[in-house]
Amino acid sequence: MRAATYRGDRNISVQSLPVADPAPDQVQLSVAYVGLCGTDLHVFHGDMDRRVSMPAVLGHEMSGTISAVGASVTGWAPGERVSVIPLVWDGTCPACRAGHQHICQNLDFVGIDSPGALQERWNVRPDTLVRLPDTLSLRHAALTEPVAVAVHDVRRGEVAAGDRVVVLGGGPIGVLIATVAAEFGAEVVVVEPDAHRRAVVASLGFRAIDPGAGDLSGWVDSWSGGAGADVVFEVSGAASAVLSATDLVKVRGRLVVVAIHGQPRPVDLHRIFWRELTVVGARVYQRADFDTAVELLARQVVPADRLITRTVPLEETGAALTALGHGAELKVLVELERQREAA
Amino acid sequence: MRAATYRGDRNISVQSLPVADPAPDQVQLSVAYVGLCGTDLHVFHGDMDRRVSMPAVLGHEMSGTISAVGASVTGWAPGERVSVIPLVWDGTCPACRAGHQHICQNLDFVGIDSPGALQERWNVRPDTLVRLPDTLSLRHAALTEPVAVAVHDVRRGEVAAGDRVVVLGGGPIGVLIATVAAEFGAEVVVVEPDAHRRAVVASLGFRAIDPGAGDLSGWVDSWSGGAGADVVFEVSGAASAVLSATDLVKVRGRLVVVAIHGQPRPVDLHRIFWRELTVVGARVYQRADFDTAVELLARQVVPADRLITRTVPLEETGAALTALGHGAELKVLVELERQREAA
Repeated sequence: MRAATYRGDRNISVQSLPVADPAPDQVQLSVAYVGLCGTDLHVFHGDMDRRVSMPAVLGHEMSGTISAVGASVTGWAPGERVSVIPLVWDGTCPACRAGHQHICQNLDFVGIDSPGALQERWNVRPDTLVRLPDTLSLRHAALTEPVAVAVHDVRRGEVAAGDRVVVLGGGPIGVLIATVAAEFGAEVVVVEPDAHRRAVVASLGFRAIDPGAGDLSGWVDSWSGGAGADVVFEVSGAASAVLSATDLVKVRGRLVVVAIHGQPRPVDLHRIFWRELTVVGARVYQRADFDTAVELLARQVVPADRLITRTVPLEETGAALTALGHGAELKVLVELERQREAA
Repeated sequence: MRAATYRGDRNISVQSLPVADPAPDQVQLSVAYVGLCGTDLHVFHGDMDRRVSMPAVLGHEMSGTISAVGASVTGWAPGERVSVIPLVWDGTCPACRAGHQHICQNLDFVGIDSPGALQERWNVRPDTLVRLPDTLSLRHAALTEPVAVAVHDVRRGEVAAGDRVVVLGGGPIGVLIATVAAEFGAEVVVVEPDAHRRAVVASLGFRAIDPGAGDLSGWVDSWSGGAGADVVFEVSGAASAVLSATDLVKVRGRLVVVAIHGQPRPVDLHRIFWRELTVVGARVYQRADFDTAVELLARQVVPADRLITRTVPLEETGAALTALGHGAELKVLVELERQREAA
């Protein structure tokens, strides 16, 4: 079978590997689509070389069909269409024992810490599987993982119907958070300095604001009748966004840290104190978030066709990551094998 | 009557003012004791000159006896022993309408934004009064306000029995937070770089740790069986404490911002993301916090006699603030009028 492997220094190449039978407690998947994301880009750029074992098979956003089932696996059969929750926890650390398995202190994030989906046949643990309804295409189902991220973020934000929500950053995750928050009944604005991204955000029906165009805090204040936003999502990763974020939140409101910040950022702790703000981190997802993500995709709440700006064959994975790094794409899918599709 | 007034530039002097009768909707108090705190020190040092109207009567930690009652006031009578919640809200701003009156967007903090307790007769609104039980001395009751701060902080931290709690900063509020958290059933350590303060903390029965003595994060990790602290309180105001605080908190644990940070501080947002931490601001108090504070003082849970390191007459207010600024005192009380005391 073919697999795309990362070998360091922006080098991803396709090689031929033998197909491994699933172990008795594994399920073998025939991978259909794999989405590429910012984390893959970090690996591609060499930022995570200490964490990945090369040659590394990346890929943690996927859809596919079960091709074989290990002898001791029950409840799953070949032909079933699935996505995968790419988390394996140890079950024994303090976080797991407290019920927070999804952020296990020794979490194996599949596709980074162990082999991922950029291979034609992929053996996984059955407890990572998520069943897909017939009404959801495999192409759209490849977005299940990033949609689950957004669902998790919105839940961590405790967004409720009628809330005013500000999303700082209009990339793929920002757009998905805006989509989920709006579906949960919130009124949403997206703040994005890049004009092209703002145009995409606006074309999806969201208000898009240029933070450089004026007094953002004053705008949010007026918009919210002098209260401030109920919930703000920091998805930009920019130091300037972090520093301004606290000014936008209402008394006792919430600021959700979604973006990865590689270094400490100046934060206005006085504002957190003065308004008794709550700042929460939001990382990956729980199974309930995947379930909601599948439902939102099946109901076509998520504008999947607008978000998927390009689909490439496995051989173009490296080139697609390079293009992703230039910021021109939203979501790029790698197509491994054309499979039976839903009607 | 005598009143101590701040006139700018570390200048507090006692002057004689006419006694004003209470308005029909006011209660007149004969002030017994007034505690001096870090906020008073900020005013004394001129840091808040834009906020105070000079000559300013400071003082927001107090105890006293009702000396007269306005014509339309019901439910209060001369001779009753009281403390005051020094907050007046507008009741109409978005925060008030959402039920967060204690941090009203236009809050009048009595003793800073309007005249405080450093005067022999003080007219206040009856809805600010807190009744004192006979078992609580007026001297100890002067600590009601700072104890209410600590109760509010511990409640914002959602401290539960069995929790492991780290308090960063061993000043008066740090000690009170440790006291309240321990009373709520937590195991507490106080981190304090100053050796004298560490000795005081230790003499009160708390474990006191020098952050400069070794690997604090590693120590907390071992102490908590590899989990991290359930709740960390940032009471120091120091940038270095903020930067290390996030390393001490367990997965999904809480960091409470109590100290006033005059400028943005570098914060490890990656750790907040990675462990899904919650950071909350905690400011002033609500009536329930005062009620609990009175109860804890009456039950002598709070080591009031150990915390009150000095009592001075009104004429020595300025000198006492100077001494407080040198860090040698914990709590200094100003005694205005010796009054009937509890048995």
